[in-house]
Amino acid sequence: MGIDDICTVSYTEETGLVILDQTKLPNEEVYVRLETKESVWDAIRKLMVRGAPAIGVCAGYGLAVSMERDDSRDTETFRRHVRETAAYLNSSRPTAVNLSWALERLCSRLDRYLQNPSENAGGSAGAAEEMRAEEKTAEGMRNAGAGTFCPDISGAKRVLFDEAEKIRREDEAACRKMGEFGLTLLKPGMGILTHCNAGTLATAKYGTCLSPIYVGQERGYDFRVFADETRPLLQGARLTSWELMKAGVDVTLICDNMANQVMKNGWIDAVVVGCDRMAANGDGANKIGTSGVAVLAKEYGIPFYMFVPTSTIDLETKTGEDIVIEQRDGEEIGSMWYQRPMAPAGVKKYNPAFDVTPSRYITAVVTEKGIIRPPYEENLRKIMEDEL
Amino acid sequence: MGIDDICTVSYTEETGLVILDQTKLPNEEVYVRLETKESVWDAIRKLMVRGAPAIGVCAGYGLAVSMERDDSRDTETFRRHVRETAAYLNSSRPTAVNLSWALERLCSRLDRYLQNPSENAGGSAGAAEEMRAEEKTAEGMRNAGAGTFCPDISGAKRVLFDEAEKIRREDEAACRKMGEFGLTLLKPGMGILTHCNAGTLATAKYGTCLSPIYVGQERGYDFRVFADETRPLLQGARLTSWELMKAGVDVTLICDNMANQVMKNGWIDAVVVGCDRMAANGDGANKIGTSGVAVLAKEYGIPFYMFVPTSTIDLETKTGEDIVIEQRDGEEIGSMWYQRPMAPAGVKKYNPAFDVTPSRYITAVVTEKGIIRPPYEENLRKIMEDEL
Repeated sequence: MGIDDICTVSYTEETGLVILDQTKLPNEEVYVRLETKESVWDAIRKLMVRGAPAIGVCAGYGLAVSMERDDSRDTETFRRHVRETAAYLNSSRPTAVNLSWALERLCSRLDRYLQNPSENAGGSAGAAEEMRAEEKTAEGMRNAGAGTFCPDISGAKRVLFDEAEKIRREDEAACRKMGEFGLTLLKPGMGILTHCNAGTLATAKYGTCLSPIYVGQERGYDFRVFADETRPLLQGARLTSWELMKAGVDVTLICDNMANQVMKNGWIDAVVVGCDRMAANGDGANKIGTSGVAVLAKEYGIPFYMFVPTSTIDLETKTGEDIVIEQRDGEEIGSMWYQRPMAPAGVKKYNPAFDVTPSRYITAVVTEKGIIRPPYEENLRKIMEDEL
Repeated sequence: MGIDDICTVSYTEETGLVILDQTKLPNEEVYVRLETKESVWDAIRKLMVRGAPAIGVCAGYGLAVSMERDDSRDTETFRRHVRETAAYLNSSRPTAVNLSWALERLCSRLDRYLQNPSENAGGSAGAAEEMRAEEKTAEGMRNAGAGTFCPDISGAKRVLFDEAEKIRREDEAACRKMGEFGLTLLKPGMGILTHCNAGTLATAKYGTCLSPIYVGQERGYDFRVFADETRPLLQGARLTSWELMKAGVDVTLICDNMANQVMKNGWIDAVVVGCDRMAANGDGANKIGTSGVAVLAKEYGIPFYMFVPTSTIDLETKTGEDIVIEQRDGEEIGSMWYQRPMAPAGVKKYNPAFDVTPSRYITAVVTEKGIIRPPYEENLRKIMEDEL
C-alpha cells in the first residue's frame, strides 16, 4: 500500500492513455481509457482529471493520442490537424493555464521537429522509450539517407508522445524535489494539517504540498495528517483524505471550522498547502480558506509552509492585491452535493474560489529549486533568476 | 415582514401548542400542532424544535397539553400522572438541561399549588390570561368557600399552563433585554458575522445573539449580516440565514472557511455568537468553529461579543478546560445530507460538537442583566450575585 497504487494520469503503448476518474471519488475507483480527442475534452471539462499539473499532463498525452490515427498524407496537413486538435482541447477549460501551456509545448516541439528533425526527434525520454523512438523514426532516417533526416508523419506522431512524456516526467521530478526539500522542514511523527488537495491526484505524482508526506512515508516518518474537508467543493474530503488513505498514510478528516481546535489540542506541528499563484512579494493565492488557516497557525506559533512550483511564481504580479479572485456560483454552497437544498431559496451567497495569504503568514515557500525564506521579494526574484 | 412572521413555539387556547418544524427548513415552512405527549416527545427527539430555551418552552407547554385530557379523579393521582409524563418527556433528549429544568419547574409549581392553592393558582401571566385563570379556578374557589381555596384538578391543569406561559415570557423578556443591551454595542449599517444559530428559532423569541439584529431592525439599523453555514450540521445555512431572510434582514451566507475573507474585506464590524456554557473565568463553550472565528476577529481587531443568558453561566465550572466537549458521529461530516458519501468509507474523522473560546478573545459578554467586560472572573460573579 503506497502512493504507487494511485495513477492519476498514465500512458504506455500497451494501456494507452488512462486516467483515474476523480468525479467518482471517493466512492468508486474507476480508471478510464481516453482514445479520442472528444473523450479527452470531456475528461478535462467534467473534472474527471483536475489540478493544474495533472491537466497539463493529460492534455499533452491527450493531444498525442488524438493524433495517433490521423491519416494526413503530408506533414503540413498533419501539422494543421495538430493545431486544430490542440485548439479544440484547449477549449475544454479555457482558464487553465497548464492546459494551453502543455498543448503549446507539443505544437512547438512538432514545429521544431518539422524544421529540424535530426535534433528534435523523440529521445529525450528514458532508454526504453528512446529505443522505441529510434525504431519509429527509422523510416524517416531511411527516407533521408545517411547523415541527414527528413521529417515524416510517424516521426511527427512520435515527437508528440515524447514531449507529453517529458511534461509528465518534469512534473513528477519537480514534485519529488518539493517533497525532498519539504521533508527537511518536518520531523517523524509530526501532526500536519492540509487544506484542499495539492496531492498526487493534482499532479503527475506526489503532489506539491503532499509530496513530503509521501517521501516521508517511504522513510518511515509516520506523519499524522489532518485534512480540512474544504467547502464548498470538498476537495479535502473527496480527494485528499482518499489519496492519503489509499496510500496508507494516517489521515483524519475534519470540517474546516475544526482547524482551530486541532491546533489548540496541540495536534498540529506544521501546516502544508499548495498555491495557485504567488505574487512577487510572496503573497500566495490558494483555495478559499487557506488564508484563515494561516492566521490560526500564526496564533498558535505553528509553521505554515506553502508549496509553490516556480511555474506558479508570477513576478509580473506585484502583490496579492493584484490577484483577481474568481467568484463562483452560490449554488455550490446552498445545494450542490445535497439531497435537497440546504439554504433558503434566493438567499444571498458569497463564494470566492480562492483567497490570498499575505506573505507575512508564510514561514517558508517550498519550490522544486529549494526553500525560500523571507524577505520574499528579494529571494523569490533570486530563485527565478537561478541565483539561489 | 419581520420577526413576528416566525413562531418557533406558540400556544393559545384556540390553536393549542404549535411548533415550526425545523427539520423541514429551509425548504418548507410547516407548522405542527402537538396534542399528545407522544407527539411532544417526538418533536423534541427529532429536533423539530431545537435550541435549549425553545426546547424548555416546548417541554413546558408540552407537559401542560399532555395533561389537559387527563381523567384523574383526585389531585394525588393527577400529580403522579404529571410526574410520570414529565419523566417520559424528559427522556426525549436526556442531556438538554433546559428540558429537565422546565419540566421540573412545572412539577414544583404544581406541588406548591396543591399545598397552597391560594397563592399558587394561575395568574402570574398577563391580564387576559389572568382573567381566564380566574374563571378556571372559580370552581376551586367555590369548593373552598369564602376566603380559603381548595386545590382541584382543573386548577391544577391551569397552573401547568400558567407556569409554561411564564417560562415562555421570561425567555422572551431575557432575549429582548439581551437585544437591547447588545444593540448599545452596535451602530447602524454595521456588518455583523454570526456562527451557528442563536436566533429566534432557538428561543421563545428574538434569540440571544441575533436579538440585537432584530431590535435594531425595528429601529432602522440596516445591519448587513454574514452567516457562517456552520458545518457539519449547517445550522447557519438552514436556520440562521432562513430566519434572518424571513424577517427581512439583509443576510449573506458563507462557508465557514470564508469568515477570514469577509473580515479581511473590511465587511465585518462585529462578531456576535451564542454560548452553551460559560465558565467562571469567562471561557465560553459554543458550537464548533466559534473559537476559530474569535481568533480571526482578534487578528483584524474586530470586537467579538458572546451572548450568554445568566442561566448559561456556570460558576461551578472554573475554566473552559473543565468543560467536556461532546464528540459526535463522523457520519455527520462524511455522508449526512449528501446524495452519496463525500468521504472515503472508513476514513477517520474528528467531530467535536463544541469548542471553547478562551475569555481573552471575548470583547464583552452580553447577558439579560447587562453587559460584562473583563475581568470576567470578578464581573461574572458580581452579576450572578446581582451586584452589577
